[in-house]
Amino acid sequence: MGRIITIGREFGSGGRELGRRLAEELGIEYYDREILTQIAKHTSMAEEYIQNVVERQPHSLLPITIGRSFAYVEDYAFKQAQAVYQAQSKIIRELAEKSDCVIIGRCADYILRDQKPLRIFVYADLESRIARCMDRRSEGEDLTEKELKKQIQAMDKNRARYYEFYTGTKWGDKLNYDLCINTTGTVIKEIVPAVAKIFD
Amino acid sequence: MGRIITIGREFGSGGRELGRRLAEELGIEYYDREILTQIAKHTSMAEEYIQNVVERQPHSLLPITIGRSFAYVEDYAFKQAQAVYQAQSKIIRELAEKSDCVIIGRCADYILRDQKPLRIFVYADLESRIARCMDRRSEGEDLTEKELKKQIQAMDKNRARYYEFYTGTKWGDKLNYDLCINTTGTVIKEIVPAVAKIFD
Repeated sequence: MGRIITIGREFGSGGRELGRRLAEELGIEYYDREILTQIAKHTSMAEEYIQNVVERQPHSLLPITIGRSFAYVEDYAFKQAQAVYQAQSKIIRELAEKSDCVIIGRCADYILRDQKPLRIFVYADLESRIARCMDRRSEGEDLTEKELKKQIQAMDKNRARYYEFYTGTKWGDKLNYDLCINTTGTVIKEIVPAVAKIFD
Repeated sequence: MGRIITIGREFGSGGRELGRRLAEELGIEYYDREILTQIAKHTSMAEEYIQNVVERQPHSLLPITIGRSFAYVEDYAFKQAQAVYQAQSKIIRELAEKSDCVIIGRCADYILRDQKPLRIFVYADLESRIARCMDRRSEGEDLTEKELKKQIQAMDKNRARYYEFYTGTKWGDKLNYDLCINTTGTVIKEIVPAVAKIFD
């Protein structure tokens, strides 16, 4: 089985951790934030700025024409988002050609569709995702469960809109993935060896 | 990992074949139609009659009161369906207690929820399911692609309604399964060893 693995994941499902540990277990590369660093190297943009562009969501940036100057600003932001997506696509393709790897998010499943990566989607029920987020809060973060729930739902909505904007298909729809893994009530560390065996 | 494995599957996805081969590979029991035979043994009903009762779908058999005699027939059929479901649940629980096994369909994931089986759902895109059905047609069957598509959709609708009636949750919703496997464009025989490794 191929060893280009893309991982889509619901916020708080532990998908990123699963990806990182899977890459470790298989002894292959792991790309997540590293991609932003690469984009920064390839463009004149700062890493923080790129993160900012990605988070601003292209779908809300389609040029509109209520007043000429406002439209201009939107159009500029939209072009920036497109430029980042183009750079990201190019880098993801280069990384996947270079060696076996795990790539987190970033529509990599769609960008690499011609290479037929193993497309994994990681998900869990909301309760379990809230619990996972509570566990990994940094010191000083004191979000309540209710606030966390809101944050999780907002993050997933963003991911869904981003994915749908660039791929034209539904984020999390099982038909877009080869394997969907439910992490409800599981300890990621404990399920990774079983998942890794698929690639032996 | 536990070795009670339940398999839900879309019609034509190859889920049954995957289950059978997985059981062979793991050297554990496989239950599909065998469950009907068991029900027949435990009740006074003939196997064919049971199949008939199952296929008549309980949701369409809820007692209604348009005319006294009609309501009586419906009520009787509804009770029969309930009796079969009860017998089936009892047998599935007994089989799962006896030894490791793979069980196909029949809401086994829900019936065995307290034993925490590994719940697999097998699916594929419609095109691939039509192709799989075309391949496995018996001699003399000459359904066109269009007819097969209709049949597949009708079967899935039945399965969904049956599942939802007895479990109160949505058939095929990934949250009801631990692992969802996309068989689009795959040869079942070839992916089984990889899936089996999860249980090593």
